Amino acid sequence: MTMDSRPLFGKVALVGVGLIGSSIAHAMRRGGLAAHIAGYTHRTATLEKARAAGFADTLHDSLAPAVRDADLVVLATPVGTFGPLAKEMSAFLKPGSILSDVGSVKTAVVRDVGPFVPDGVHLIPAHPVAGTEQSGPEAGFAELFDGRWCILTPPPGADIGAVDLLKTFWQRLGSQVEIMDPKHHDLVLAITSHVPHLIAYNIVGTAADLETVTESEVIKFSAGGFRDFTRIAASDPTMWRDVFLNNREAVLEMLGRFNEDLSLLQRAIRWGDGDALFNLFTRTRAIRRSIIDVGQDSPEPNFGRTQKKS
Amino acid sequence: MTMDSRPLFGKVALVGVGLIGSSIAHAMRRGGLAAHIAGYTHRTATLEKARAAGFADTLHDSLAPAVRDADLVVLATPVGTFGPLAKEMSAFLKPGSILSDVGSVKTAVVRDVGPFVPDGVHLIPAHPVAGTEQSGPEAGFAELFDGRWCILTPPPGADIGAVDLLKTFWQRLGSQVEIMDPKHHDLVLAITSHVPHLIAYNIVGTAADLETVTESEVIKFSAGGFRDFTRIAASDPTMWRDVFLNNREAVLEMLGRFNEDLSLLQRAIRWGDGDALFNLFTRTRAIRRSIIDVGQDSPEPNFGRTQKKS
Repeated sequence: MTMDSRPLFGKVALVGVGLIGSSIAHAMRRGGLAAHIAGYTHRTATLEKARAAGFADTLHDSLAPAVRDADLVVLATPVGTFGPLAKEMSAFLKPGSILSDVGSVKTAVVRDVGPFVPDGVHLIPAHPVAGTEQSGPEAGFAELFDGRWCILTPPPGADIGAVDLLKTFWQRLGSQVEIMDPKHHDLVLAITSHVPHLIAYNIVGTAADLETVTESEVIKFSAGGFRDFTRIAASDPTMWRDVFLNNREAVLEMLGRFNEDLSLLQRAIRWGDGDALFNLFTRTRAIRRSIIDVGQDSPEPNFGRTQKKS
Repeated sequence: MTMDSRPLFGKVALVGVGLIGSSIAHAMRRGGLAAHIAGYTHRTATLEKARAAGFADTLHDSLAPAVRDADLVVLATPVGTFGPLAKEMSAFLKPGSILSDVGSVKTAVVRDVGPFVPDGVHLIPAHPVAGTEQSGPEAGFAELFDGRWCILTPPPGADIGAVDLLKTFWQRLGSQVEIMDPKHHDLVLAITSHVPHLIAYNIVGTAADLETVTESEVIKFSAGGFRDFTRIAASDPTMWRDVFLNNREAVLEMLGRFNEDLSLLQRAIRWGDGDALFNLFTRTRAIRRSIIDVGQDSPEPNFGRTQKKS
């Protein structure tokens, strides 16, 4: 991480102070990136939790005072809220400022937010590929983005200085930064994030609905593999609903391929084709190794989980 | 854990000294459960690794000396090898001894091993629901079974004393023990372990085959969820091939249900039915909570993974 610790921005407004918003605040504090951190949420309970966590200089339950005079505004709410929020804040955005976000889909951001960006304000969507299954202002921590990737998807003709500034911002939050076309982003994330979440949610639902196996059995014997899926399936429901509604095309495309491949495996099991199974199971080991080699996961067995003693 | 530390058995023979066999040896040493631990493997390289790890009193590359005089013989190789191994060791099994295993399927054990069990030897299949994605004699550790469940599936009319002894054995290895019908075991594990492994292997294969997203992108951005699946998809290929070939009926049944449910989700995404998505995503959170409450997973975010610093 760079040792540079001059503030990059005067005021930064976080519109949304859940897991990602609060983690940005903690990491900004750690790096001294902003002279003033403002947080916005319309929920009283969330506001109180954010106040208790103490990561913001000011907290607001209305948008205008939160975003006014901000040099950087970051949308950190579920993607489905971006359009209405952008419309409401539009009149208060400062000329020359950057409007960004942390949404898990990117073509929808330009579509929904783009129409409300005033002249002179730089819309530069961003997606930090980082998170946990927890949510809310108390779930954030400064290290969340360390070593993870943040993808920027600047629209054609975006101001180069603004893109560079946002890139530096994310690097000083601990991330590595990649620039990508929004459509390609949505395809990449469909396979690395969205479809994995969908099938995790799905199998946990399937297991809960069985009449031949009790829920208590599913829970007791979950260490056989199932428990890994329940972590992902514990992620924020509103956020994930909005992801699927706003990346329909890419998710359905990747899901189609997943289903085709699963049908082949199903057939291999039905007909006892052990070689087909063995060949796939051997190939997939190499991918795990690469992910560990580039530092995107822990090399420890079982993710280094703390083993519960009896 | 009980403080009792008298040896339960004179000689215990581990037929197979991979992750599970070596972990049993380490846990037996920890608990002082056997006067003599014998290990068998037909592979020279594995034998050398086991020797270096030092968890066995004697190591053998032929079955007869390994199992001769053993009070407990544990099959800890891939399930597909059980039949031939049982046939080969049959003449050397000691009257009054217990023949058990650690296979992830249970009806197949009675089918394949049953015919070769001599009179006076007690066949009591067992399945410790524990493991990691690693394999081999150097992957084992004494704590693997602590707090996990071990399922015994004694055939009708099994000797009660022998069942009780094996139950005590697994408890002193750190496990909780459940007695179950083998057919029901295979159904429970199909949903809690086998189908989760299958869909993890499958999505990692799907991702590797894409022509629109590079493997390097899949690896870089795997922290969005995909990396969790790659851990499971790094599990031992031979072991898992044999699981699917030997639990065909239950796996296909559970896979059918998984597919039906996934089709509904697919349709909800296509038609923009946010409520259907939100309702499922909310329901699945509760299951995660229960798994943590009963101590079958870590409550820490991201399984408590060590976060790589940049």
